[in-house]
Amino acid sequence: MKTLRIAVVGYGNIGHYAVEAVQAAPDMELAGIVRRSTALSEEEAKSLAGIKVVTDVGMLGKVDVALLCGPTRSIPETAPLYLARGIHTVDSFDIHGEKLWQLRSNLDAVGKEHGSVAVVSAGWDPGSDSLLRVLLLAMAPKGLTYTNFGPGMSMGHSVCAKSKPGVKDALSMTMPVGAGVHRRMVYVELDPGAELAKVTAAIKEDEYFAHDDTHVFAVPSIDEIKDVGHGVLMERKGVSGATHNQMFEFRMRIDNPALTSQIMVSCARAAALRLSPGAYTMPEIAPMDFLPGDREMLVKTLV
Amino acid sequence: MKTLRIAVVGYGNIGHYAVEAVQAAPDMELAGIVRRSTALSEEEAKSLAGIKVVTDVGMLGKVDVALLCGPTRSIPETAPLYLARGIHTVDSFDIHGEKLWQLRSNLDAVGKEHGSVAVVSAGWDPGSDSLLRVLLLAMAPKGLTYTNFGPGMSMGHSVCAKSKPGVKDALSMTMPVGAGVHRRMVYVELDPGAELAKVTAAIKEDEYFAHDDTHVFAVPSIDEIKDVGHGVLMERKGVSGATHNQMFEFRMRIDNPALTSQIMVSCARAAALRLSPGAYTMPEIAPMDFLPGDREMLVKTLV
Repeated sequence: MKTLRIAVVGYGNIGHYAVEAVQAAPDMELAGIVRRSTALSEEEAKSLAGIKVVTDVGMLGKVDVALLCGPTRSIPETAPLYLARGIHTVDSFDIHGEKLWQLRSNLDAVGKEHGSVAVVSAGWDPGSDSLLRVLLLAMAPKGLTYTNFGPGMSMGHSVCAKSKPGVKDALSMTMPVGAGVHRRMVYVELDPGAELAKVTAAIKEDEYFAHDDTHVFAVPSIDEIKDVGHGVLMERKGVSGATHNQMFEFRMRIDNPALTSQIMVSCARAAALRLSPGAYTMPEIAPMDFLPGDREMLVKTLV
Repeated sequence: MKTLRIAVVGYGNIGHYAVEAVQAAPDMELAGIVRRSTALSEEEAKSLAGIKVVTDVGMLGKVDVALLCGPTRSIPETAPLYLARGIHTVDSFDIHGEKLWQLRSNLDAVGKEHGSVAVVSAGWDPGSDSLLRVLLLAMAPKGLTYTNFGPGMSMGHSVCAKSKPGVKDALSMTMPVGAGVHRRMVYVELDPGAELAKVTAAIKEDEYFAHDDTHVFAVPSIDEIKDVGHGVLMERKGVSGATHNQMFEFRMRIDNPALTSQIMVSCARAAALRLSPGAYTMPEIAPMDFLPGDREMLVKTLV
C-alpha cells in the first residue's frame, strides 16, 4: 500500500490526537510536527520521543499532506502557505456559513493554481454531521433537521473564550435545549486582577457566542473540570416523494479531539489519492475515498 | 434550473413511488413509464392519468435517466440495454456482496463504452446504509458495526418468496434479533392446491433466505397484513486514532418503497449532472451530488 507522509502542524489538543491517528493509519507515516517553536515541555518531550519537531515543513523531506491543527482563526493564512508548496492540506475550520464558504473559495483558487488539494472543515460539525445533513436531505428532501449538540466541551468555543484578555484558561460547555437550540456554559480561569464582568462581555459579543444563551462563570481551575467527551443527536422528520413522516435519528457519544483528528486523517487520504486540485468540504467527497484498502473489496464487503 | 427527463421502468411497488418522487423533484420531469404491457388496471389507469405509458423507452423522446424499478433479478439484463442507448440508469439491486460487485463491474464497462452512468444499488440497504457504514469506518476505523433491520417488510425478500411456484402473494417480515442477526417471518398466500411444505423448502433454500432463521406461514390474504413501514438501527462502537469507546447510532423508521424511490431519484441527479461514465455505488458518490440547487449556497447553509 502506498505510504502517505503526513505532517502535523500545531501540537495542541487536536495535534496530539492527530499524531496518534496518523500512527494508527495502515497507509500513512508521520513525517513530523511543525510548530512555531521546537522547545518542548517535559510532557511533550515524552510523548514526542522519536518524532521530528521542526519550525518549517521544508525540514521534513517529502510531505504529502499537512494536517492543520492550529486554531480555526489561523487557518485562512496558514493553509495557502502549504498549498502553494504543493502540499495538500486538511483543516477543521469550525465557523459555519459565509466564512467557511469564503475559506473554501480562497483555498480552491490556491489549490488549483499549485496542483494541491484542500479539505476544508474536516471534523464532525462542520464535517461528518454536514455530510449526514446532506444525505438526509437526499433521503427526505422536505422537512426539518435539528442538530443537537452536547452536553460536551466545544473546543472551538473554549479556544475562543481563552483568547480573551484576562482569561488564563477556559472551557465552554454546549448544553442542548432541544430542536437545535443550545445554551453555552463558559467556565473561565482568570488572570490575577482580571474582571469577570469584562471577560463576560468580551465572550458574549464574540461571533462564536453571540447567537446563543451564554453564561460565564469564574472557576479556580479549568483542569479540574475538563472532560473532552461530546455528543450529537441529529433528528430529521421529512417527506420522501409524496410520503410524509419519515423519521431519522443519528446519535453519537465521542471523545471530541480524537474524532476530529481521526476524520482529518481520513480526509488526508482523499486529498492525497482521490481528489483533483481545489478545495472541498466533506459532503463534496465520496465517502469511499476516506478509506484505505482495495476499492473492489470494500464494495464487496461494505456496500 | 436544468430539467432532467426521467423514465420510470416498471410500475410495481417502487415504480409507483418513483413516479411521485420524480414529480416532487424541482429539477425533473417525468418522461413516462416503460412497461412490458401498456394494458392498465383500473387503479393504474387512475393514478397514471396524463402520464405516457410505453413499451419502449425510444417512444418517450429524450430521456436522461431511467429509474429501473423492476425486480432485482431483472437488473443485470435490463440496465445494459439503457446504458447502451446513452441513457443513465439507477437501480436498487439489493443482493449484497459478490453479485452486487459483479453488476457494478459489468455496468461500469457498458457505461464507459457508451458514455453513460449507472448508479447501482441505490436504496437504503444497500444504499444510504452502505454510505453510513463507510462514513463510520472513516470516523472510527477499528471496531464493529451492526446493522439491525426491522421490524418491517422486506420488499426484496417478499418478491423472492412470491416468485416461488404455488405462491400467489407473499410478505416477508424482517425481525431484528440484535447484533445484526435477523429472523425472517414469511407469510404466503398459496395458490389452490399448493403445498406449504414444498413452498417452505423452496423459500428456505433461496440465497435470500438461506443464511437466516426463516419461518414460513400460510395466511388467507396478504393484503390484510401488508404494511410497508420499515426500520433500521445501525450501531458502531469503535476506535478513533488510539481512543476507544466511540459510540455511534443511526435509527430510522420509514415507508420502505417511498424511501427507496426517493433515493433513486436523488441518485439520478448525480448520474445525469455530476458523474463520469461508469458505474458507482452510493458510497462512491459525493453526497452533495444528490441534491438540487446551487452548490455554493448549499455549502453556505448545510456544511
